[in-house]
Amino acid sequence: MNAKKIVLDEKDLPKQWYNIQADLPEPLDPPYNTREGRPAQPEDLEVIFPKEIVKQEMSSERYIDIPEPVLEAYKIWRPSPLVRASNLEKFLDTPAKIYFKNEGVSPSGSHKSNSAIAQAFYNKEAGVKRIATETGAGQWGSALAMACEMFAIECVIYMVKVSYEQKPYRKSLMQVYGAQVFSSPSNQTETGRKVLTEDPDNQGSLGIAISEAIEDVLNHKNAKYSLGSVLNHVAMHQTVIGLEAKKQLEIAGDYPDIVIACLGGGSNFSGTAFPFIMDKLQGKKPNLRAIAAEPSACPKLSKGVLAYDFGDTSGFTPALKMYTLGHTFMPGGIHAGGLRYHGASPLVSALVKHNFVEPVTVKQREVFEAAITFTRTEGILPAPESAHAIRVAIKEALKAKEEGKSKTILFNLSGHGHFDLSAYDNYLSGKMVDYEYPADKVCEALTHLPKI
Amino acid sequence: MNAKKIVLDEKDLPKQWYNIQADLPEPLDPPYNTREGRPAQPEDLEVIFPKEIVKQEMSSERYIDIPEPVLEAYKIWRPSPLVRASNLEKFLDTPAKIYFKNEGVSPSGSHKSNSAIAQAFYNKEAGVKRIATETGAGQWGSALAMACEMFAIECVIYMVKVSYEQKPYRKSLMQVYGAQVFSSPSNQTETGRKVLTEDPDNQGSLGIAISEAIEDVLNHKNAKYSLGSVLNHVAMHQTVIGLEAKKQLEIAGDYPDIVIACLGGGSNFSGTAFPFIMDKLQGKKPNLRAIAAEPSACPKLSKGVLAYDFGDTSGFTPALKMYTLGHTFMPGGIHAGGLRYHGASPLVSALVKHNFVEPVTVKQREVFEAAITFTRTEGILPAPESAHAIRVAIKEALKAKEEGKSKTILFNLSGHGHFDLSAYDNYLSGKMVDYEYPADKVCEALTHLPKI
Repeated sequence: MNAKKIVLDEKDLPKQWYNIQADLPEPLDPPYNTREGRPAQPEDLEVIFPKEIVKQEMSSERYIDIPEPVLEAYKIWRPSPLVRASNLEKFLDTPAKIYFKNEGVSPSGSHKSNSAIAQAFYNKEAGVKRIATETGAGQWGSALAMACEMFAIECVIYMVKVSYEQKPYRKSLMQVYGAQVFSSPSNQTETGRKVLTEDPDNQGSLGIAISEAIEDVLNHKNAKYSLGSVLNHVAMHQTVIGLEAKKQLEIAGDYPDIVIACLGGGSNFSGTAFPFIMDKLQGKKPNLRAIAAEPSACPKLSKGVLAYDFGDTSGFTPALKMYTLGHTFMPGGIHAGGLRYHGASPLVSALVKHNFVEPVTVKQREVFEAAITFTRTEGILPAPESAHAIRVAIKEALKAKEEGKSKTILFNLSGHGHFDLSAYDNYLSGKMVDYEYPADKVCEALTHLPKI
Repeated sequence: MNAKKIVLDEKDLPKQWYNIQADLPEPLDPPYNTREGRPAQPEDLEVIFPKEIVKQEMSSERYIDIPEPVLEAYKIWRPSPLVRASNLEKFLDTPAKIYFKNEGVSPSGSHKSNSAIAQAFYNKEAGVKRIATETGAGQWGSALAMACEMFAIECVIYMVKVSYEQKPYRKSLMQVYGAQVFSSPSNQTETGRKVLTEDPDNQGSLGIAISEAIEDVLNHKNAKYSLGSVLNHVAMHQTVIGLEAKKQLEIAGDYPDIVIACLGGGSNFSGTAFPFIMDKLQGKKPNLRAIAAEPSACPKLSKGVLAYDFGDTSGFTPALKMYTLGHTFMPGGIHAGGLRYHGASPLVSALVKHNFVEPVTVKQREVFEAAITFTRTEGILPAPESAHAIRVAIKEALKAKEEGKSKTILFNLSGHGHFDLSAYDNYLSGKMVDYEYPADKVCEALTHLPKI
């Protein structure tokens, strides 16, 4: 009988993160300081991030040591299991082998803890007393709240108002972890107060929440900001996922033909796929396919442009070279809140440009159909974000069946769906709608790109 | 550095359950058929349970083989981790070693899956097409829904109306697993219709829901009933918890001085403690303490009487010899819905009678205080039920500190609290109340015990 799960021992935890900047076909374009009209310098970033994080952001060392206290904290749930989706394979009657890495076993419920803990540690080392951040759907906020509690740092979270009200359980979880959570726009910042004066019923946006978090940092002593995706150091912290998966597949005597992860800002995709894409970049696995699953409602890699753009709606952050739909673009209200970001990480963007990553779009209803198939076969309820990867994995497994080929497919189950059951209700009651690619809104948003 | 978690390989899964009936100081009193005024016969039980389950219920074989398909399904999440609560130990500054078994990693979120899968399997083998059950808080319903889906059996769940409305996510989870869920009292049964006619706003009770589920079984061909606690076979299926924990502690070179689990009907307590109590019953570990943590609002072991009583409020089931507060007793509305049952499993009751198990009561607010301490140190959000065990573990660890003794404490984290965050909100907002032992209500309820 085949193993259902491949579980590593704690001593097999990766001791280093993998930094794909060492292997890129060409160096990344640097972040750009639009206020001063020049490439951003480390000092620009050190206003809001501790030095060690900025150093990692710009490093081209291939491997960076994971500090001992971070490893210790990882051990609460890591190494995470690699599971053979044997029941799903049987259900699909496919010759393909499907494996998934289960990052939903982390206490905060998703892969986000991998970077939250690292960031909390480096802030602690730098003497930071308070970290501010924003959160939309709440996975990042939960992860950072837990990490700050572990390293005894005050944690302040600006949560987009619509999520604050629709996902009260996510908010409560952050509070149980000891974080202060504000509905954004809030009365805590100038930005928030200004928005509320103009529109007391404003539902908030990730852009406003980022601006509030950064303003909070600038207004407090020993305070820094923390971001849960997009940036290079975040992508790097997430590579523990793929590095573990590689060891686990080796135990199974396997290597993937196809690696699949969903893509919001890019941290989950990066963490899962980069350690495999390394082999492709180094010429060892030329046929590996790495697929980024995006929602049709927000297809930055498939339909966006590669250009400098801001990370937030209000243009507060340095500009980054990335595939973007425009920082003022507001996607339709899909339930996978974590995938509604307008841009993609510069690293993933560079890999798409050079054809090392294939973007694929999927629609909301087929995503939930796949999520339910998965839950009914493998037992585990996925987050709507993760279900994008499941959808693509099922498509590829069925294609393998059609072609009569045995393929090895790996996808990342980035989080569980315990806080997303109202979305499942929406699907089961037949009320869920699909969102098409809103070409006209994107065209409009692209006219607001910064001129660099 | 010490290991944080001890994780077994799938091949180390126990291959047999432990049946404590083999080691009891005296045989259990049999169930009693009150309608016919005689001890119940296997045939009485076979009306609602498949033969193999009834055989297990009455067996005194020490070990019973776990069937291969059950082991296969267990592998989705088992063996579950044994975790050293090192951060909690540090926080308490105690010389005690605290270990917990994490049953919250099961896809349904609690230990309940251990028996649900076994029961679904034996029903499938017996050709059963439909299983009906009741659920209160929803942990059992979720577990059975998942198990039935895996063995392709129709699953019908009568969910107590107040929970159906207050815990919509639990209901949705069962539906995602493919179960039909009815708010009880429902229009599906004579019992339900009668209650609704008399009182259209009736909020339901576990008693009514059990009656509805049993009526459903009697009204359908090839249908059987399934119970998630109390009975001997359920307790036995749960012993995989303690059997695994024993192997894991052996790897750590340890053996518990104290084993703690919360007690509702008794399945979680039995599963955790019986494999250790075995050593005490066999004279090998005379000093082992096994503590059952009960809520002060529903302290059947601490304050109840040992007598024959019904399993349901309406007196539909055979009577069982157990510690009970009376089958008509309605405890206060504590958030740990799984611990609001009026009676305790006959097996646990017998062990309490012979002083092999110590009952301890804890109050709701101290339970949530402990839950928050645990979440903030160990990262994992516990179910309110499980937090009763945490509370007692903390008390014992502090006692060890006071006495300057190193003790080894094991408790079971029977489930996660992702669906219980409104209860945490209630605590954090300072609105939570304690419930004292309602002596007068119990006195009244005890007058309704069947005369056997």
